[in-house]
Amino acid sequence: MSDEKATTTEAEPPRTRDREEAGGGTTLSLSRRRLLGTVGAAGAGGLALGASGGALALSQGRDPVTPLASVGTGRHTFHGTHQPGIVEPGQAHGHLAAFDLVPGAGRREAAALLRRWSAAAAALMAGEPVEGVAATGIADDAGPSSLTVTFGFGASFFDRTGLADQRPAALEPLPEFSADELDGRRSNGDLWVQVAADDGLVAFDALRVLQRETGRAARLRWQMTGFNRTPGATDRPRTARNLMGQVDGTNNPRPEDDDFDRHVFVPRGGDRRSPAWMEHGSYAVVRRIRMLLDEWDKQSLEQQERVIGRRKSDGAPLSGGDERTPLDLEKTDARGRLLVPFNAHARVSAPETSGGATMLRRPFSYHDGFLPDGAPDAGLLFVAWQADPQRGFVPVQRKLDRGDALSRFVRHEASALFAVPGGAPEGGYVGQPLLEG
Amino acid sequence: MSDEKATTTEAEPPRTRDREEAGGGTTLSLSRRRLLGTVGAAGAGGLALGASGGALALSQGRDPVTPLASVGTGRHTFHGTHQPGIVEPGQAHGHLAAFDLVPGAGRREAAALLRRWSAAAAALMAGEPVEGVAATGIADDAGPSSLTVTFGFGASFFDRTGLADQRPAALEPLPEFSADELDGRRSNGDLWVQVAADDGLVAFDALRVLQRETGRAARLRWQMTGFNRTPGATDRPRTARNLMGQVDGTNNPRPEDDDFDRHVFVPRGGDRRSPAWMEHGSYAVVRRIRMLLDEWDKQSLEQQERVIGRRKSDGAPLSGGDERTPLDLEKTDARGRLLVPFNAHARVSAPETSGGATMLRRPFSYHDGFLPDGAPDAGLLFVAWQADPQRGFVPVQRKLDRGDALSRFVRHEASALFAVPGGAPEGGYVGQPLLEG
Ligand code: HEM
Ligand code: HEM
Repeated sequence: MSDEKATTTEAEPPRTRDREEAGGGTTLSLSRRRLLGTVGAAGAGGLALGASGGALALSQGRDPVTPLASVGTGRHTFHGTHQPGIVEPGQAHGHLAAFDLVPGAGRREAAALLRRWSAAAAALMAGEPVEGVAATGIADDAGPSSLTVTFGFGASFFDRTGLADQRPAALEPLPEFSADELDGRRSNGDLWVQVAADDGLVAFDALRVLQRETGRAARLRWQMTGFNRTPGATDRPRTARNLMGQVDGTNNPRPEDDDFDRHVFVPRGGDRRSPAWMEHGSYAVVRRIRMLLDEWDKQSLEQQERVIGRRKSDGAPLSGGDERTPLDLEKTDARGRLLVPFNAHARVSAPETSGGATMLRRPFSYHDGFLPDGAPDAGLLFVAWQADPQRGFVPVQRKLDRGDALSRFVRHEASALFAVPGGAPEGGYVGQPLLEG
Repeated sequence: MSDEKATTTEAEPPRTRDREEAGGGTTLSLSRRRLLGTVGAAGAGGLALGASGGALALSQGRDPVTPLASVGTGRHTFHGTHQPGIVEPGQAHGHLAAFDLVPGAGRREAAALLRRWSAAAAALMAGEPVEGVAATGIADDAGPSSLTVTFGFGASFFDRTGLADQRPAALEPLPEFSADELDGRRSNGDLWVQVAADDGLVAFDALRVLQRETGRAARLRWQMTGFNRTPGATDRPRTARNLMGQVDGTNNPRPEDDDFDRHVFVPRGGDRRSPAWMEHGSYAVVRRIRMLLDEWDKQSLEQQERVIGRRKSDGAPLSGGDERTPLDLEKTDARGRLLVPFNAHARVSAPETSGGATMLRRPFSYHDGFLPDGAPDAGLLFVAWQADPQRGFVPVQRKLDRGDALSRFVRHEASALFAVPGGAPEGGYVGQPLLEG
């Protein structure tokens, strides 16, 4: 931390004090090392923007009405009860990468790798030099830009490291779904890294540093890049849009909800399906879901809205109200037709119709060019967080697989499930209770 | 335009009045249609940020110290003397795409396409609905986010449309260079579109709309996606960094320079190598240049700096001074060694050593995942603008090809050259003087 005034950079509504203390805390402070003097002189939290919107004493850059470095100074902390990159608002740039241990590397090498990775992640997230790694310079003068780094273990990790008896029951392979068209080369993996930041160069740099830190212990298996709206590009509170143009994320559980932790995090001491080393951890379901946008674009607005059960413009339920109004699943029109159709995505995925199954969706959009037929290779890097996939993703996806109007317009192309341990304390590393337990 | 207060969103130093009037002008205004009421109520140019940096009346979003919609409201105008996307600071997201006319499509179809494209570009850049195209919703509530759309013609366009006699001499194919490892499928093309914006969803949406507007006239040939630093991520004035970590763009010609127009734009009435329909236009050299980052990262900082001839931290010449100090190409150290080495990239590419050859470099970084050996598929989508490639890119690249210390660390993988006509007046379209001339 620093002696500057700290301001939370939270989405509305603000986090509970509880979570703030739990670490993975979200603070805004200037990284003196990285930022030039002009802003530092004004002081964090003291940026001032005149009503003229024109010449600003502290602004020498490309857009006089963006307080420069306001994005760059966003900072999350690595150490804490939970790992970062789960509850924070999704950043503008994200990388998901899986690594496999090389043949011969076992528990010892994995422990050393997680120790190096954790140290590097803590430094990168604080905007400080990573010990033992020559700085690339790529992130220089940008500040951490709300960088988060998150680590996870795939099921195969436990055999490779002789830790099969520590593999959580909750990490059992996801079932096959009828709509799956999975590419094994872009699925699964021993180790998972999620890197995200509001600046593309900062995110790339962090990914590179972490890749280099694997040394001879692990090799990249797959990597995917995604994005979300740029901070300041909209004044819409919190909820993102996806590449189908929908408001996406409305009915996510919220950190201030009483049962948020129960749904998203493994409880202290573990539980029936998660050993103690997973306490305060979570499970990440990662699905690369391509959108068949050419098909989608052929539908009328009304058809598109009935596929989801919500209005496209503002995400309000077709049963009425605004974005935050609960869906009324019973309401009908004059002719007795359900306003939220029986196969609408929002109905089929709702906890009310899935025995309470709940997950925190925190996706990135992706666009990897175009396929030979001219269709965009684009969609959702779907990342869902839950305390147990059997009480989150699995029952919901089973239901979607049978009767979701959205299925026609999407293809699940890759899939993975990772156990994401709790956060590391200062001086410790992610996975230490497993690897040194 | 609108009745709101307009504020320039220019990089330092500000544009000359001349260019501002010439169109392609850069204004900041709120798109009332797209932005929610909260910011509109405060009024463009009237955004105010309290010294507390905390709760802002107009801010309901993810980061209280970023005036929301400040990025979203950035707006450039489509109509003007020059096309947009040449002199404006490089946006955070860019797409380059080439299209080929389908067999049978000729001059008439091309004219209709450019008319549709121009109308769509003008609407998208203003944050307004595109006539005749169902809105995707993807860009909703974001504002134009400094979107620019730029159109160009490749050499093959002129044969396809029976306009071979109108092909500019300046559009002759680029010579082969010894270091080229070009992929024909990602090179050249009849038509070129450059789309760039500070928001990734806005840029994607614009690209999609333009692709759909091709109708049955043209097909996508190749497409590449790039990025630059997010606005607000740094307070460094103007100059970007690339994925080698270098400050890149320092010695670009500046719009306020006396000879800027002469170097970058075809003069009124055309010239010896450009017909009249190219007046106020420019030529875009597009090169996909992969960086061999694994090799690069093995070099010491000193070695890396000697490859360019500038300091990595701040871009200052190795001959002394700060970023803006001219390179001293003669200066030596105590042992008589040139401070800017004889093969340093900045020396070999400097106009002083290339008969005055000058271009405006306006690149995007790209990162398309990793190659099978784990090396990043990343580098520079190099876009260079000049009034004539024979007085810009060609002589410089010839020199670089022979003796540039950087060559070892880069691979030119794709190449294209496009004639980018002047801007369209209101009611007109890009290329009209060619296609209806
Ligand atoms: C490309 C694929 C998908 C798209 C475009 C999509 C889009 C949406 C949209 C627009 C909503 C309504 C707004 C909201 O509450 O967020 C929604 C809700 C939801 N989606 Fe999806 N979704 C996709 C895949 C999935 C998958 C694979 C799952 C889980 C298996 C899922 C689970 C949910 C859940 C739980 C909700 C909230 C339902 C409620 O409580 O009201 N979605 N989705
Ligand atoms: C990945 C490939 C390249 C990289 C990383 C790169 C990087 C740089 C850097 C760091 C500078 C010094 C700062 C500046 O003045 O912008 C520079 C200058 C320059 N580069 Fe490149 N460059 C690349 C390719 C090229 C190519 C292909 C050309 C043209 C054929 C070119 C032309 C120039 C010019 C004209 C200058 C300014 C020289 C001066 O007037 O001082 N560069 N480049």
